[in-house]
Amino acid sequence: MSRPIVSLLTDFGARDVSAAICRAVVLGICPDAEVIDLSHEIRKYSIRDGALALWSALPYLPVGVHVAVVDPGVGTARRPLAIRAGRGDVLIGPDNGLLVSAAERLGGVGEVRELAHPAYRLPVVTSTFHGRDIFAPAAGHLAAGAAFDTLGPAIDPATLVGSPLPVASPIEGGGLATEVIYEDTFGNLKLSALVDDVRAVLGDPTGGTFELRTGDGRTLHLGWGRTFGELAPGEPLLYEDSYGRTCIAVNQGSAVSALGLRDGTRLELRRA
Amino acid sequence: MSRPIVSLLTDFGARDVSAAICRAVVLGICPDAEVIDLSHEIRKYSIRDGALALWSALPYLPVGVHVAVVDPGVGTARRPLAIRAGRGDVLIGPDNGLLVSAAERLGGVGEVRELAHPAYRLPVVTSTFHGRDIFAPAAGHLAAGAAFDTLGPAIDPATLVGSPLPVASPIEGGGLATEVIYEDTFGNLKLSALVDDVRAVLGDPTGGTFELRTGDGRTLHLGWGRTFGELAPGEPLLYEDSYGRTCIAVNQGSAVSALGLRDGTRLELRRA
Amino acid sequence: MSRPIVSLLTDFGARDVSAAICRAVVLGICPDAEVIDLSHEIRKYSIRDGALALWSALPYLPVGVHVAVVDPGVGTARRPLAIRAGRGDVLIGPDNGLLVSAAERLGGVGEVRELAHPAYRLPVVTSTFHGRDIFAPAAGHLAAGAAFDTLGPAIDPATLVGSPLPVASPIEGGGLATEVIYEDTFGNLKLSALVDDVRAVLGDPTGGTFELRTGDGRTLHLGWGRTFGELAPGEPLLYEDSYGRTCIAVNQGSAVSALGLRDGTRLELRRA
Repeated sequence: MSRPIVSLLTDFGARDVSAAICRAVVLGICPDAEVIDLSHEIRKYSIRDGALALWSALPYLPVGVHVAVVDPGVGTARRPLAIRAGRGDVLIGPDNGLLVSAAERLGGVGEVRELAHPAYRLPVVTSTFHGRDIFAPAAGHLAAGAAFDTLGPAIDPATLVGSPLPVASPIEGGGLATEVIYEDTFGNLKLSALVDDVRAVLGDPTGGTFELRTGDGRTLHLGWGRTFGELAPGEPLLYEDSYGRTCIAVNQGSAVSALGLRDGTRLELRRA
Repeated sequence: MSRPIVSLLTDFGARDVSAAICRAVVLGICPDAEVIDLSHEIRKYSIRDGALALWSALPYLPVGVHVAVVDPGVGTARRPLAIRAGRGDVLIGPDNGLLVSAAERLGGVGEVRELAHPAYRLPVVTSTFHGRDIFAPAAGHLAAGAAFDTLGPAIDPATLVGSPLPVASPIEGGGLATEVIYEDTFGNLKLSALVDDVRAVLGDPTGGTFELRTGDGRTLHLGWGRTFGELAPGEPLLYEDSYGRTCIAVNQGSAVSALGLRDGTRLELRRA
Repeated sequence: MSRPIVSLLTDFGARDVSAAICRAVVLGICPDAEVIDLSHEIRKYSIRDGALALWSALPYLPVGVHVAVVDPGVGTARRPLAIRAGRGDVLIGPDNGLLVSAAERLGGVGEVRELAHPAYRLPVVTSTFHGRDIFAPAAGHLAAGAAFDTLGPAIDPATLVGSPLPVASPIEGGGLATEVIYEDTFGNLKLSALVDDVRAVLGDPTGGTFELRTGDGRTLHLGWGRTFGELAPGEPLLYEDSYGRTCIAVNQGSAVSALGLRDGTRLELRRA
């Protein structure tokens, strides 16, 4: 039989030992768990970056228990959650919108429970480290076979804090209003627009040329490329990343410094 | 049966392959080991940061073999050690104070051995990478069932290099002399004073207001808060971290830049 | 029976979730795999840094399947490869020179296959993330027992792109022409010259004094030391690193800033 999968995603940083402690707590409760660290370098307090990371990664993971902690409200009244997703996974983390987009992508938000059962927490629950004291232990107990409905009282999914990920919207006259939502470690920029959004409004983008108007009044012209290797180093392009999302890259360079775009820049995308 | 736990903590950095080689050496000797990387981003050569990380993390790990390598004296006469702690763990690393505080927190320093047995080393021992050649192999053999007393000659615990972690001390007239010992990746500052030290000298700190005099003659006033979420972003507080230690934070900001405190700053703490 | 070993080395960075997705894809196909992350912080696009990391690390790993992705040509016609090495390992990655030196160090390049079998790829192969779509799945299937010769058509090893690692060469009159090829996270510099190269041209270096002429016309004098601990902090030395390579270090400091050398600096090494 396969080992149960538990994944961890946090903004704890790789230097501190907090992330490893969460892993250890899972393994202390469920020694057979296979723990996958998705990332512990999510930008501090950025619920949106965390939500995008989960949305991107979880479809490629085996069905499992996925713990995510980007939690500026730790210690306040925000609820600790477990969400059952359509695919069979359980997502664990704070009720601040972090988990919602990923759950929708895994078949939709199903039953939701508040993590309230004292037996699924560490004996002492501090006010600053719920990753260790509440979230990781709940994941360990689920991985070890605890039933979902013993976690705590049911929560009405309609009361959950919504996803922080913005969506692209059509502009009157044929364009698409979108925004830069993430800069990856290669300097590529991810937009809120999926390629399906582009296709719906502007048709199949492959091979086309596009105009981007930035919020600060500049206009850029970019071709839609298939892969970086087709371009000279330094040349910019629009492309579909490997998750179906519209992105902007500069081949072997940084789109941020080359094009003056950054996380949060609003864009209007039209055919050139 | 559970897989044997081996943890690793080093200052090798995540970019170089050194830390992964230590993991591989453990697994080559004991394929069933569950290897937990506590951190490989300990500040270079900082025995104190390493000691604090072990002190913080190990109580949350299952009983196991814990390897720590922050070792500016590698290749000199400093002894390679295995310390048996009261809880049943074995701590492995150099005799430079790195392991002592953690061993004390795991039930105390018990028997100590020098890692001398040639069969528990790699065939070639270099003078610059004892993590790979001496420490990881010893951990692998222990995890695979080797008896502790076959590691090498017994060492008198009284001869070990002491812990580099400073302790807080009462000041005549009712205050507590302490110092900043660590800045975490959120910009929070950890003090040498445990909350038990504060309680013993100044009573229960919860809800109180305190005066901090810094070594360079400044005076700060800080309230003792329960959690970050109670404060406005940018507001500073004293609080008990999740390990029972006295800390200073600025909600969603850096205490270093906001308050002008840093690792090594001496402080006197009094009731305001 | 031991769990099959799969190692991963990429330039994806620890912040993004790409590396974790590769791990998850391997585990989804082969749940028993023991996945070892060698490093995901290889300098972006640096095939040479990646090749050196593999050369250094793989001899210390158990025999296994080793995936490496530093792949500026992803999505172009460069071939996806599996190389069987003499020791029994399989190396997987792009045909850009990344894998060759490591394969030679593991007993030599044996049979080579192109990764072409559709059943060993993800259902959708994107043009920008072959680590997830082609390389990790192939590794998972090999770890799960797929036969090497079912991966795809045989490739003539003579047609592989060669290693990017430069080699040292004797200079007329008795010196050795070499170059700085890597700066590790401690600030130590690795040279293209192995200590065996030095020994062949200049005899046993231990205890000797050497002259280094830099490409920009400076001359440095350095002793050959056995270990850092013998020196005062700040003192420079030539030494054999733990992989048999000639290196330059400044005890507890950075050779880059102290000596003005950097990755790519050409050097002539002679007896002083």
